[in-house]
Amino acid sequence: MRELPLNRAFTLLEPGPVVLVTTHDAGKDNIMTISWTMVLDFTPVFAMTTGPWNHSFAALRKHRECVIAIPGVDLLDTVVGIGTCSGADTDKFARFGLTPAASRLVKPPRIEACLANIECRVTDIIERHHVVVLEAVAAYVDSEREERRTVHAVGDGTFIVDGRRINRRRMMASRLPPGI
Amino acid sequence: MRELPLNRAFTLLEPGPVVLVTTHDAGKDNIMTISWTMVLDFTPVFAMTTGPWNHSFAALRKHRECVIAIPGVDLLDTVVGIGTCSGADTDKFARFGLTPAASRLVKPPRIEACLANIECRVTDIIERHHVVVLEAVAAYVDSEREERRTVHAVGDGTFIVDGRRINRRRMMASRLPPGI
Repeated sequence: MRELPLNRAFTLLEPGPVVLVTTHDAGKDNIMTISWTMVLDFTPVFAMTTGPWNHSFAALRKHRECVIAIPGVDLLDTVVGIGTCSGADTDKFARFGLTPAASRLVKPPRIEACLANIECRVTDIIERHHVVVLEAVAAYVDSEREERRTVHAVGDGTFIVDGRRINRRRMMASRLPPGI
Repeated sequence: MRELPLNRAFTLLEPGPVVLVTTHDAGKDNIMTISWTMVLDFTPVFAMTTGPWNHSFAALRKHRECVIAIPGVDLLDTVVGIGTCSGADTDKFARFGLTPAASRLVKPPRIEACLANIECRVTDIIERHHVVVLEAVAAYVDSEREERRTVHAVGDGTFIVDGRRINRRRMMASRLPPGI
Protein backbone atom coordinates (compact mmCIF):
# COMPACT_ATOMS: atom_id res chain seq x y z
CA MET A 1 0.00 0.00 0.00
CA ARG A 2 1.31 3.46 -0.88
CA GLU A 3 0.16 6.58 0.91
CA LEU A 4 -2.42 8.70 -0.93
CA PRO A 5 -2.30 12.48 -0.34
CA LEU A 6 -5.20 13.35 1.96
CA ASN A 7 -6.65 15.91 -0.45
CA ARG A 8 -7.34 13.05 -2.89
CA ALA A 9 -8.94 10.67 -0.38
CA PHE A 10 -12.48 11.96 -1.03
CA THR A 11 -12.25 10.48 -4.55
CA LEU A 12 -12.30 7.00 -2.96
CA LEU A 13 -15.76 7.56 -1.43
CA GLU A 14 -17.42 10.04 -3.78
CA PRO A 15 -18.40 7.35 -6.35
CA GLY A 16 -20.43 5.59 -3.62
CA PRO A 17 -18.81 2.14 -3.29
CA VAL A 18 -19.86 -0.29 -0.59
CA VAL A 19 -17.13 -0.22 2.08
CA LEU A 20 -15.86 -2.19 5.05
CA VAL A 21 -15.34 -0.30 8.31
CA THR A 22 -13.01 -1.66 11.00
CA THR A 23 -13.17 -0.82 14.70
CA HIS A 24 -11.26 -2.02 17.77
CA ASP A 25 -12.51 -2.56 21.31
CA ALA A 26 -11.39 -4.63 24.30
CA GLY A 27 -8.50 -6.23 22.38
CA LYS A 28 -10.70 -7.27 19.47
CA ASP A 29 -10.94 -6.03 15.91
CA ASN A 30 -14.31 -5.97 14.18
CA ILE A 31 -15.59 -5.18 10.68
CA MET A 32 -18.94 -3.97 9.38
CA THR A 33 -20.23 -3.51 5.83
CA ILE A 34 -21.57 -0.03 5.12
CA SER A 35 -23.18 1.36 2.00
CA TRP A 36 -24.61 4.60 3.41
CA THR A 37 -21.67 7.03 3.24
CA MET A 38 -21.22 10.55 1.84
CA VAL A 39 -18.47 13.10 1.37
CA LEU A 40 -18.99 16.23 3.50
CA ASP A 41 -15.84 18.15 2.61
CA PHE A 42 -12.73 17.83 0.45
CA THR A 43 -10.31 17.98 3.41
CA PRO A 44 -11.73 15.18 3.61
CA VAL A 45 -14.64 14.80 5.98
CA PHE A 46 -17.09 11.90 5.55
CA ALA A 47 -20.53 11.02 6.91
CA MET A 48 -21.70 7.48 7.54
CA THR A 49 -25.14 6.28 8.67
CA THR A 50 -24.94 3.70 11.47
CA GLY A 51 -26.32 3.18 14.94
CA PRO A 52 -26.86 0.82 17.85
CA TRP A 53 -28.21 -1.84 15.45
CA ASN A 54 -24.59 -2.40 14.38
CA HIS A 55 -22.33 -4.08 16.96
CA SER A 56 -19.44 -1.87 15.75
CA PHE A 57 -21.28 1.30 16.77
CA ALA A 58 -20.40 0.90 20.47
CA ALA A 59 -16.68 0.69 19.62
CA LEU A 60 -16.98 3.64 17.26
CA ARG A 61 -18.67 5.76 19.91
CA LYS A 62 -16.28 4.71 22.69
CA HIS A 63 -12.94 5.01 20.89
CA ARG A 64 -13.92 7.45 18.11
CA GLU A 65 -11.73 5.81 15.50
CA CYS A 66 -12.19 3.53 12.48
CA VAL A 67 -10.69 2.55 9.17
CA ILE A 68 -12.75 2.68 5.98
CA ALA A 69 -11.50 -0.08 3.65
CA ILE A 70 -12.61 -0.15 0.00
CA PRO A 71 -13.01 -3.67 -1.36
CA GLY A 72 -12.73 -4.73 -5.00
CA VAL A 73 -15.49 -6.73 -6.68
CA ASP A 74 -13.43 -9.90 -6.08
CA LEU A 75 -14.30 -9.47 -2.37
CA LEU A 76 -18.08 -9.18 -2.89
CA ASP A 77 -18.97 -12.43 -1.13
CA THR A 78 -16.76 -11.43 1.81
CA VAL A 79 -18.49 -8.03 1.93
CA VAL A 80 -21.95 -9.67 1.96
CA GLY A 81 -20.80 -12.26 4.52
CA ILE A 82 -19.47 -9.54 6.84
CA GLY A 83 -22.74 -7.64 6.46
CA THR A 84 -24.88 -10.63 7.42
CA CYS A 85 -23.19 -11.80 10.63
CA SER A 86 -22.40 -9.96 13.88
CA GLY A 87 -19.14 -9.12 15.59
CA ALA A 88 -20.97 -9.89 18.86
CA ASP A 89 -20.33 -13.60 18.29
CA THR A 90 -17.91 -13.74 15.34
CA ASP A 91 -14.24 -12.88 14.78
CA LYS A 92 -14.79 -11.59 11.27
CA PHE A 93 -11.08 -11.30 10.34
CA ALA A 94 -10.63 -15.01 11.15
CA ARG A 95 -13.92 -16.17 9.65
CA PHE A 96 -13.34 -14.42 6.32
CA GLY A 97 -9.56 -15.03 6.17
CA LEU A 98 -8.69 -11.34 6.15
CA THR A 99 -5.32 -10.03 7.36
CA PRO A 100 -5.46 -6.99 9.66
CA ALA A 101 -2.56 -4.59 9.02
CA ALA A 102 -1.46 -2.14 11.71
CA SER A 103 -2.70 1.39 11.04
CA ARG A 104 -0.38 4.35 11.48
CA LEU A 105 -2.54 6.82 13.41
CA VAL A 106 -5.50 4.84 14.76
CA LYS A 107 -5.98 1.55 16.58
CA PRO A 108 -8.48 -0.20 14.22
CA PRO A 109 -6.56 -2.08 11.54
CA ARG A 110 -6.46 -1.64 7.80
CA ILE A 111 -7.59 -4.56 5.66
CA GLU A 112 -4.65 -5.70 3.50
CA ALA A 113 -6.86 -7.32 0.85
CA CYS A 114 -8.73 -4.10 0.02
CA LEU A 115 -7.78 -1.69 -2.71
CA ALA A 116 -7.70 1.33 -0.43
CA ASN A 117 -7.83 2.13 3.29
CA ILE A 118 -8.64 5.41 5.04
CA GLU A 119 -7.75 5.90 8.72
CA CYS A 120 -10.43 8.09 10.34
CA ARG A 121 -11.29 9.84 13.59
CA VAL A 122 -14.88 10.45 14.67
CA THR A 123 -15.39 14.20 15.04
CA ASP A 124 -19.13 14.29 15.63
CA ILE A 125 -22.16 12.03 16.04
CA ILE A 126 -25.49 13.50 14.92
CA GLU A 127 -27.69 11.41 17.18
CA ARG A 128 -31.06 12.40 15.73
CA HIS A 129 -30.11 11.09 12.29
CA HIS A 130 -27.69 8.30 13.28
CA VAL A 131 -24.93 10.00 11.33
CA VAL A 132 -21.27 9.61 12.31
CA VAL A 133 -18.93 12.33 11.03
CA LEU A 134 -15.38 11.21 10.24
CA GLU A 135 -12.19 13.13 9.56
CA ALA A 136 -9.67 11.19 7.49
CA VAL A 137 -6.15 11.29 8.93
CA ALA A 138 -4.30 8.97 6.51
CA ALA A 139 -5.13 7.17 3.27
CA TYR A 140 -3.50 4.36 1.31
CA VAL A 141 -4.05 2.63 -2.01
CA ASP A 142 -2.71 -0.66 -3.28
CA SER A 143 -1.50 0.40 -6.69
CA GLU A 144 -0.29 -3.14 -7.53
CA ARG A 145 -3.77 -4.67 -7.18
CA GLU A 146 -5.12 -6.02 -10.46
CA GLU A 147 -8.87 -5.91 -9.75
CA ARG A 148 -9.66 -2.23 -9.25
CA ARG A 149 -13.43 -2.26 -9.85
CA THR A 150 -15.57 -1.48 -6.79
CA VAL A 151 -19.21 -2.42 -6.21
CA HIS A 152 -22.27 -0.30 -5.47
CA ALA A 153 -25.04 -1.78 -3.31
CA VAL A 154 -28.53 -1.21 -4.69
CA GLY A 155 -30.14 -2.13 -1.38
CA ASP A 156 -32.31 -4.94 -2.74
CA GLY A 157 -29.63 -7.64 -2.57
CA THR A 158 -28.10 -6.75 -5.94
CA PHE A 159 -24.84 -4.93 -6.59
CA ILE A 160 -23.61 -2.87 -9.56
CA VAL A 161 -19.99 -3.33 -10.59
CA ASP A 162 -17.95 -0.38 -11.92
CA GLY A 163 -18.03 -0.17 -15.70
CA ARG A 164 -16.01 2.11 -17.95
CA ARG A 165 -14.63 5.49 -16.91
CA ILE A 166 -15.44 8.70 -18.80
CA ASN A 167 -13.15 11.72 -18.60
CA ARG A 168 -14.69 15.22 -18.36
CA ARG A 169 -11.75 16.93 -16.66
CA ARG A 170 -11.56 19.67 -19.27
CA MET A 171 -15.26 20.61 -18.95
CA MET A 172 -14.98 20.55 -15.15
CA ALA A 173 -11.61 22.30 -14.81
CA SER A 174 -13.13 25.44 -13.23
CA ARG A 175 -14.86 23.40 -10.49
CA LEU A 176 -12.19 20.91 -9.39
CA PRO A 177 -10.52 21.52 -6.01
CA PRO A 178 -6.85 22.60 -6.22
CA GLY A 179 -4.37 19.79 -6.84
CA ILE A 180 -6.98 17.31 -8.07
CA MET B 1 -43.13 7.68 -15.72
CA ARG B 2 -44.77 5.12 -13.44
CA GLU B 3 -45.00 5.57 -9.68
CA LEU B 4 -42.48 3.62 -7.61
CA PRO B 5 -43.61 2.48 -4.13
CA LEU B 6 -41.91 4.75 -1.59
CA ASN B 7 -40.34 1.85 0.30
CA ARG B 8 -38.27 1.10 -2.83
CA ALA B 9 -37.13 4.67 -3.51
CA PHE B 10 -33.96 4.32 -1.41
CA THR B 11 -32.65 1.84 -4.01
CA LEU B 12 -32.39 4.74 -6.48
CA LEU B 13 -29.85 6.60 -4.31
CA GLU B 14 -28.08 3.83 -2.39
CA PRO B 15 -25.74 2.96 -5.33
CA GLY B 16 -24.39 6.54 -5.22
CA PRO B 17 -25.24 7.97 -8.66
CA VAL B 18 -24.66 11.61 -9.52
CA VAL B 19 -28.07 13.34 -9.42
CA LEU B 20 -29.81 16.49 -10.52
CA VAL B 21 -31.79 18.42 -7.91
CA THR B 22 -34.53 20.86 -8.94
CA THR B 23 -35.81 23.77 -6.87
CA HIS B 24 -38.33 26.56 -7.48
CA ASP B 25 -38.27 30.15 -6.29
CA ALA B 26 -39.84 33.42 -7.43
CA GLY B 27 -41.48 31.81 -10.45
CA LYS B 28 -38.26 30.19 -11.65
CA ASP B 29 -37.13 26.58 -11.74
CA ASN B 30 -33.47 25.79 -11.16
CA ILE B 31 -31.29 22.66 -11.26
CA MET B 32 -28.05 21.72 -9.54
CA THR B 33 -25.78 18.71 -9.96
CA ILE B 34 -25.07 16.87 -6.71
CA SER B 35 -22.84 13.89 -6.03
CA TRP B 36 -22.72 14.04 -2.24
CA THR B 37 -25.87 12.19 -1.15
CA MET B 38 -26.58 9.35 1.29
CA VAL B 39 -29.50 7.23 2.43
CA LEU B 40 -30.42 7.86 6.10
CA ASP B 41 -33.43 5.56 6.41
CA PHE B 42 -35.49 3.13 4.32
CA THR B 43 -38.74 5.12 4.66
CA PRO B 44 -36.88 6.82 2.78
CA VAL B 45 -34.93 9.69 4.25
CA PHE B 46 -31.91 11.09 2.39
CA ALA B 47 -29.02 13.41 3.25
CA MET B 48 -27.38 15.76 0.77
CA THR B 49 -24.36 18.02 1.26
CA THR B 50 -24.91 21.53 -0.08
CA GLY B 51 -24.70 25.10 1.14
CA PRO B 52 -24.67 28.79 0.28
CA TRP B 53 -22.05 28.13 -2.45
CA ASN B 54 -24.89 26.64 -4.53
CA HIS B 55 -27.46 29.15 -5.85
CA SER B 56 -30.19 26.50 -5.31
CA PHE B 57 -29.53 26.42 -1.57
CA ALA B 58 -31.48 29.64 -0.91
CA ALA B 59 -34.57 28.17 -2.64
CA LEU B 60 -34.13 24.90 -0.77
CA ARG B 61 -33.95 26.68 2.57
CA LYS B 62 -36.82 29.04 1.81
CA HIS B 63 -39.36 26.60 0.33
CA ARG B 64 -38.08 23.34 1.82
CA GLU B 65 -38.83 21.26 -1.26
CA CYS B 66 -36.90 19.73 -4.15
CA VAL B 67 -36.96 16.93 -6.69
CA ILE B 68 -34.03 14.52 -7.00
CA ALA B 69 -33.79 13.40 -10.64
CA ILE B 70 -31.54 10.49 -11.61
CA PRO B 71 -29.94 10.91 -15.03
CA GLY B 72 -28.75 8.13 -17.29
CA VAL B 73 -25.22 8.12 -18.73
CA ASP B 74 -26.62 9.58 -21.98
CA LEU B 75 -27.16 12.83 -20.02
CA LEU B 76 -23.59 13.07 -18.68
CA ASP B 77 -22.65 16.21 -20.62
CA THR B 78 -25.88 17.86 -19.44
CA VAL B 79 -25.07 16.87 -15.86
CA VAL B 80 -21.56 18.36 -16.11
CA GLY B 81 -22.90 21.47 -17.88
CA ILE B 82 -25.50 22.02 -15.14
CA GLY B 83 -22.78 21.59 -12.51
CA THR B 84 -20.50 24.18 -14.08
CA CYS B 85 -22.88 27.13 -14.54
CA SER B 86 -25.09 29.00 -12.06
CA GLY B 87 -28.84 29.43 -11.80
CA ALA B 88 -28.09 33.01 -10.73
CA ASP B 89 -27.68 33.99 -14.39
CA THR B 90 -28.89 30.93 -16.35
CA ASP B 91 -32.25 29.29 -17.03
CA LYS B 92 -30.85 25.76 -16.95
CA PHE B 93 -33.99 24.03 -18.25
CA ALA B 94 -33.86 26.24 -21.37
CA ARG B 95 -30.09 26.15 -21.80
CA PHE B 96 -29.89 22.36 -21.63
CA GLY B 97 -33.15 21.66 -23.48
CA LEU B 98 -34.76 19.87 -20.55
CA THR B 99 -38.54 19.61 -20.11
CA PRO B 100 -39.85 20.35 -16.61
CA ALA B 101 -42.81 18.13 -15.71
CA ALA B 102 -45.26 19.17 -12.98
CA SER B 103 -44.65 17.33 -9.71
CA ARG B 104 -47.56 15.91 -7.76
CA LEU B 105 -46.77 17.00 -4.18
CA VAL B 106 -44.09 19.69 -4.46
CA LYS B 107 -43.56 22.82 -6.55
CA PRO B 108 -40.10 22.06 -8.07
CA PRO B 109 -40.55 20.10 -11.30
CA ARG B 110 -39.46 16.61 -12.24
CA ILE B 111 -37.08 16.25 -15.17
CA GLU B 112 -38.79 14.21 -17.91
CA ALA B 113 -35.54 13.08 -19.53
CA CYS B 114 -34.24 11.38 -16.35
CA LEU B 115 -34.72 7.73 -15.51
CA ALA B 116 -36.21 8.41 -12.10
CA ASN B 117 -37.52 11.35 -10.07
CA ILE B 118 -38.07 11.63 -6.32
CA GLU B 119 -40.23 14.43 -4.89
CA CYS B 120 -38.79 15.48 -1.51
CA ARG B 121 -39.48 17.75 1.44
CA VAL B 122 -36.67 19.22 3.56
CA THR B 123 -37.16 18.04 7.14
CA ASP B 124 -33.94 19.32 8.68
CA ILE B 125 -30.80 21.31 7.87
CA ILE B 126 -27.71 20.42 9.88
CA GLU B 127 -26.01 23.78 9.58
CA ARG B 128 -22.65 22.81 11.08
CA HIS B 129 -22.07 20.18 8.39
CA HIS B 130 -24.03 21.75 5.49
CA VAL B 131 -26.26 18.69 5.38
CA VAL B 132 -29.86 18.92 4.15
CA VAL B 133 -32.16 16.11 5.30
CA LEU B 134 -34.91 15.12 2.85
CA GLU B 135 -38.01 13.00 3.21
CA ALA B 136 -39.21 11.49 -0.06
CA VAL B 137 -42.94 11.93 -0.65
CA ALA B 138 -43.33 10.43 -4.14
CA ALA B 139 -41.09 8.55 -6.58
CA TYR B 140 -41.31 7.69 -10.26
CA VAL B 141 -39.29 5.66 -12.75
CA ASP B 142 -39.39 5.68 -16.53
CA SER B 143 -39.57 1.97 -17.19
CA GLU B 144 -39.64 2.51 -20.99
CA ARG B 145 -36.26 4.24 -21.05
CA GLU B 146 -33.62 2.25 -22.91
CA GLU B 147 -30.44 3.62 -21.31
CA ARG B 148 -30.66 2.66 -17.66
CA ARG B 149 -27.02 2.97 -16.62
CA THR B 150 -26.24 5.78 -14.14
CA VAL B 151 -22.90 7.48 -13.55
CA HIS B 152 -20.81 7.87 -10.40
CA ALA B 153 -18.68 11.01 -10.02
CA VAL B 154 -15.14 10.31 -8.83
CA GLY B 155 -14.58 13.96 -7.94
CA ASP B 156 -11.51 14.46 -10.15
CA GLY B 157 -13.45 15.19 -13.34
CA THR B 158 -13.90 11.52 -14.26
CA PHE B 159 -17.08 9.45 -13.98
CA ILE B 160 -17.65 5.70 -13.64
CA VAL B 161 -20.53 4.21 -15.61
CA ASP B 162 -22.60 1.34 -14.17
CA GLY B 163 -21.29 -2.05 -15.29
CA ARG B 164 -22.88 -5.44 -14.76
CA ARG B 165 -25.23 -6.30 -11.90
CA ILE B 166 -24.55 -9.17 -9.47
CA ASN B 167 -27.38 -10.81 -7.53
CA ARG B 168 -26.81 -11.77 -3.87
CA ARG B 169 -30.45 -11.65 -2.75
CA ARG B 170 -30.36 -15.17 -1.34
CA MET B 171 -27.26 -14.50 0.83
CA MET B 172 -28.79 -11.22 2.02
CA ALA B 173 -32.38 -12.38 2.54
CA SER B 174 -32.20 -12.02 6.34
CA ARG B 175 -31.08 -8.37 6.10
CA LEU B 176 -33.35 -6.92 3.41
CA PRO B 177 -36.14 -4.60 4.55
CA PRO B 178 -39.68 -6.04 4.20
CA GLY B 179 -41.12 -5.93 0.68
CA ILE B 180 -37.78 -5.34 -1.04
